[in-house]
Amino acid sequence: MTQLELARNGIITDEMRVCAQREGVLPDKVMEEVALGRAVIPKNRLRPLERPCVIGKAFSVKINANVGTSPDSCSLESEREKIETAILSGADCVMDLSIAGNLKKIRRALLEVATVPFGTVPIYEVTYNLVRDGRDVESMTIDDVLAVLEGQAKDGVDFFTIHAGLTKRAVERYVDKRVMKVVSRGGSILTEWIVKNNKENLLYEYFDDILALMKEYDVTISLGDGLRPGAIADATDRAQIEELTVLGELADRARSFGVQVMIEGPGHVPLNQIQMNMELEANLCGDAPFYVLGPLPTDVAVGFDHISGAIGGAIAGWFGASMLCYVTPAEHISHPDKNDVFLGVIGAKIAAHSADLARGNRQAWEWDNAISLARFNQDWDGQIRLAIHPPTAKRLRDRMDLKDKSACSMCGEFCAIKRVKNAKEADKI
Amino acid sequence: MTQLELARNGIITDEMRVCAQREGVLPDKVMEEVALGRAVIPKNRLRPLERPCVIGKAFSVKINANVGTSPDSCSLESEREKIETAILSGADCVMDLSIAGNLKKIRRALLEVATVPFGTVPIYEVTYNLVRDGRDVESMTIDDVLAVLEGQAKDGVDFFTIHAGLTKRAVERYVDKRVMKVVSRGGSILTEWIVKNNKENLLYEYFDDILALMKEYDVTISLGDGLRPGAIADATDRAQIEELTVLGELADRARSFGVQVMIEGPGHVPLNQIQMNMELEANLCGDAPFYVLGPLPTDVAVGFDHISGAIGGAIAGWFGASMLCYVTPAEHISHPDKNDVFLGVIGAKIAAHSADLARGNRQAWEWDNAISLARFNQDWDGQIRLAIHPPTAKRLRDRMDLKDKSACSMCGEFCAIKRVKNAKEADKI
Repeated sequence: MTQLELARNGIITDEMRVCAQREGVLPDKVMEEVALGRAVIPKNRLRPLERPCVIGKAFSVKINANVGTSPDSCSLESEREKIETAILSGADCVMDLSIAGNLKKIRRALLEVATVPFGTVPIYEVTYNLVRDGRDVESMTIDDVLAVLEGQAKDGVDFFTIHAGLTKRAVERYVDKRVMKVVSRGGSILTEWIVKNNKENLLYEYFDDILALMKEYDVTISLGDGLRPGAIADATDRAQIEELTVLGELADRARSFGVQVMIEGPGHVPLNQIQMNMELEANLCGDAPFYVLGPLPTDVAVGFDHISGAIGGAIAGWFGASMLCYVTPAEHISHPDKNDVFLGVIGAKIAAHSADLARGNRQAWEWDNAISLARFNQDWDGQIRLAIHPPTAKRLRDRMDLKDKSACSMCGEFCAIKRVKNAKEADKI
Repeated sequence: MTQLELARNGIITDEMRVCAQREGVLPDKVMEEVALGRAVIPKNRLRPLERPCVIGKAFSVKINANVGTSPDSCSLESEREKIETAILSGADCVMDLSIAGNLKKIRRALLEVATVPFGTVPIYEVTYNLVRDGRDVESMTIDDVLAVLEGQAKDGVDFFTIHAGLTKRAVERYVDKRVMKVVSRGGSILTEWIVKNNKENLLYEYFDDILALMKEYDVTISLGDGLRPGAIADATDRAQIEELTVLGELADRARSFGVQVMIEGPGHVPLNQIQMNMELEANLCGDAPFYVLGPLPTDVAVGFDHISGAIGGAIAGWFGASMLCYVTPAEHISHPDKNDVFLGVIGAKIAAHSADLARGNRQAWEWDNAISLARFNQDWDGQIRLAIHPPTAKRLRDRMDLKDKSACSMCGEFCAIKRVKNAKEADKI
């Protein structure tokens, strides 16, 4: 049975127990949310997973980091370093989006170092195999897809992005009106397949076969948004909402199979449309966990999209997103390196934590209260230890040659904390 | 007459005309907003100001960058470089918060390079003079204050932060309950003065004298929030709201004198309290422009507070803040260097621009549409030119040795844009 089926039967699994402990809640709570389909615990039945996590709006907001080779930057060693950096800096999940090199070998090597849930977009390997075999994308069959899914499931992948909600209708009616058309790699492959074959999306047509296979390994399905907006001007348009509506139907279907399901979301969205997007997903998809990319509230932050992603992600998390996919400073312009991965994780983590505070998460409040108490006590070691990334905090503190070791270097004798403490002691305010 | 008085008399000044052109609106619009006190144009009558700007909720969101010496890092050259970096990277206003070295000399030197409105917190120089003369803070008189204000006004400072709303009542009743008490440097000086003298804040008592002097030079008053929350746990508490209420009264008073006025705001505020804070300020302070520090939606982002500040600032701007004070990565832990200033400005600029988009600003939408069009056309020069910081975008693009010069390095043959274009051409979708 899958975690979903077990939860429905009132069974608390080891994974639920570990997740509950990490969240600081009772195991019953995790079981209930999983049973309702409001939370998922992505874990392949075949995989020994050190740090499972529960993804759902009743719990802390999670973050995912993508890594993967590209034709212009294809080194297993570098991707392995990135995945280790991501996990060390706080990623709750990772995805391997490799599209170059020996995909199987890379995936297996990365799975070995990933102590957290591990996802993929199997259509990449399907396409990679077609190209390798000299076949056109439009010749792709459901058997090609299922073969890759099975191979990856057997390797132990915990969740698959499946772009089954991108329909012929949406492609024909709505895509052409957009500034950026289709910006999802998987979405563009399926768009090409649909257009050239003049047929409905094969992932939609054979969705039950996909579910049956995934259920066998308890691989969680992450319903991909192949039509996510890639420009502010395309946000919340008909193409996106048509697909989201279909994703909601498919989520119901997945649950009826006992397959854990989450929904992927935008993309480029202006600030004032993020709340609506979160609420719409909850309604259309029966509260399935929403896993969002960014969202990015502007198109212009090239080189700093970890910051724009943090802005959008914080608001998304606050209004109900369950997992934020990080965005790195390399987004739109380059292939991320290890430092980009680090900055992407930090940005997403600040966003997720800010959302946790806004959602009233007890553990999040305790963390902030602890660092502020250390700050008031001018306990610099405590502040560094409690900082989001202690080595960075320490480096900034240590770069000054301080006259007064108890002070920060901003204010010296103008230190507000000391002044008020002194005044207080003098006059007992 | 001040810009406010001129606007009330239906006079469109040169400054209003320049601001209108920058905003892409009619000069009448600027005049009306200034006349209503919903916008300010900080510009000292004595100062030749290259780039005046209009700060108000009907216009694009502005950003301010603070620089200034500290006892542990006191170099005029370094502060000058920082102010130049800030302006070059997009700061609309700058403030000199120096507290060490020859304050007059530093201020005059920085004023010379500042092509944008220039603000100070005069209480720092007042305190500095007291310490120099061997006097205690509690011996400060209104004459000490007025002498400094006059000197700075004659130097050409465009706006003063004045902490006149921090009252004896708030200090006595509400400060002690807080985790972080008082975190504003100016606020802590006045708290000490109030407590030790057991008297009402002298800036409050002699507010009319301050206004009379500022009016003479058309220095804009920025009513400081000496009791801004310095911890998430202290946000929107009685101390903060008591002060904000008084600031509203003082804003009315300033306008009745014909003095342009803006209101300074928090501080550390969780995401779910930012909208309320913006609306409260608008109501209590008669829509006076709100100039916010951050806000920071978490206490833990030490070393990355330019990111947490961007998150809070974007939401604040979206809900009506008129100017965002940048926060640098050095906040809470060190004295910012030039690179910190750069990152602080970029973070604030992304926040302000995201807010502009959410507020429906036409120029902001044109910028995003232009870069997205360049992106769709795979016009890399255009994307770099339209990026928030072109040199960074160029550096990221150039670091890859690309096989296909027309592609980004993320996807190679998996490029979604190319795939959809090809499919479209093949089948006329």
